[in-house]
Amino acid sequence: MHLSSPQPSAGSQDTTGKVPSERLLVVKIGGQVIDEATALTNFLKAFAALKGKKILVHGGGKIATKTGERMGIVSRYVNGRRITDEATIDLVTMVYGGGVNKRLVAGLQALGCNAIGLTGADANTIPAQRRPVGDIDYGFVGDIALQGVDARPTVALLDVGMTPVFAPLTHDGQGQMLNTNADTIAAALAVALSARYEVRLIFCFDKKGVLRNKADDEDVVPVMDRNSYRQLLDAHALSDGILPKLDNAFQAIESGVHEVLIGRADDLVQNAGEAPTGTLIRQ
Amino acid sequence: MHLSSPQPSAGSQDTTGKVPSERLLVVKIGGQVIDEATALTNFLKAFAALKGKKILVHGGGKIATKTGERMGIVSRYVNGRRITDEATIDLVTMVYGGGVNKRLVAGLQALGCNAIGLTGADANTIPAQRRPVGDIDYGFVGDIALQGVDARPTVALLDVGMTPVFAPLTHDGQGQMLNTNADTIAAALAVALSARYEVRLIFCFDKKGVLRNKADDEDVVPVMDRNSYRQLLDAHALSDGILPKLDNAFQAIESGVHEVLIGRADDLVQNAGEAPTGTLIRQ
Repeated sequence: MHLSSPQPSAGSQDTTGKVPSERLLVVKIGGQVIDEATALTNFLKAFAALKGKKILVHGGGKIATKTGERMGIVSRYVNGRRITDEATIDLVTMVYGGGVNKRLVAGLQALGCNAIGLTGADANTIPAQRRPVGDIDYGFVGDIALQGVDARPTVALLDVGMTPVFAPLTHDGQGQMLNTNADTIAAALAVALSARYEVRLIFCFDKKGVLRNKADDEDVVPVMDRNSYRQLLDAHALSDGILPKLDNAFQAIESGVHEVLIGRADDLVQNAGEAPTGTLIRQ
Repeated sequence: MHLSSPQPSAGSQDTTGKVPSERLLVVKIGGQVIDEATALTNFLKAFAALKGKKILVHGGGKIATKTGERMGIVSRYVNGRRITDEATIDLVTMVYGGGVNKRLVAGLQALGCNAIGLTGADANTIPAQRRPVGDIDYGFVGDIALQGVDARPTVALLDVGMTPVFAPLTHDGQGQMLNTNADTIAAALAVALSARYEVRLIFCFDKKGVLRNKADDEDVVPVMDRNSYRQLLDAHALSDGILPKLDNAFQAIESGVHEVLIGRADDLVQNAGEAPTGTLIRQ
């Protein structure tokens, strides 16, 4: 997550000062949902059934690595992080922007959901900066500031009844596609759209929610705020894997997002409603 | 070209009976423009510079075959026609819908043109029927009727200042992507949009226009109608390669498209204007 630190958000306030009342769901799914045919079918049915305005942001899945292997493109890692060289950005643009994105779009259309697939280059929805070369050159990776997205093109699509489906790709405005973390895209979109909508940002995850006890998958924290987060941190109750997601969630909340929900893809319908099974994070 | 025969067009008349006055350019480029970096750069500059509302439809290029070879996907042909089996539709969805389409979109965005990349699945812009299995099973190939496209989603994008960029892909409405001829997509879009706009459909081609004399690349027919087409046919003056394009052009004209221009990609700016160097086809 390369987000700028929280600041008073330009995106969090309507210019009229009114609190937005129309609801918008921003749902992020990861690769594990995309890689399994049954999980994907179930997810698409659940997403298509959600009422009202909604946006889907998807990760990549293992298919990029598999396709790369078939093409003789070797994934390079430095300190456990993938390097996006020229062959890799071309690969992920094809696989995420074409293969994965259109499978989701065609699947949602078949279920009556008017999906439109996008990368950040399309309609300039998410311009980014190529990550500066420091100790490591990550290659064609795009960073976006949490308050850096102009919501207008996405709002224009929502206003005509379309459901944007974002691949984890942005562009530098100079003609270069960039690889960008899907959690970051989902959070930045949620922040930008909070000026216009009451946004629930839903991160689909492999656990039911944030666990109070790492050893018990059913012991979900139902509601969290900064205070309860601090208490759980002090008690060393949280798993390492959830910490970046929670930091990200609280940054989004502090930048104007109404609420963030962390839960399983299988529980999406319930987690989009009034009685979620996952963890609801509020100011 | 699998177009239905010309019929009184539902798409060619505004419901108010008014003749549309706003101009729209529908430009189709083929693979040869996409395959050469310099040709592509020049084309994108020319397209970005065109004033007013416009749409780009692109073909595939050789990159799908090259990528398929690298992945061990062998192109199969029957009677000289490519068979789109399951591996091939997945390949072209990646390559055309992701790789080629996003290169064009990011390139146009860098030139200030607010491009948005689409397949026919996106916002259900171009639903199609899988080609029925006759003597040959072409596989996942989508046929569209010349009057079969609902213009509304594309109009909605044009109305908010976006420039649609179509890959040669459609869908069957049941979740399956389909491979569709780019000339057919361009013609069907032009017909559908003629209810709302005065459309010039521009087919970019490797010759300056329709040649009166096959041996002389400079001897371009400047303007054609059905009568002059008949005369050139009777005189056996036309090359075989141009005949399907001309049949297609006259079908489009008879279905409400204001005019069709056949010319070189290099001459696009001039061919979009009042004094084209290519062949202008009118009712």
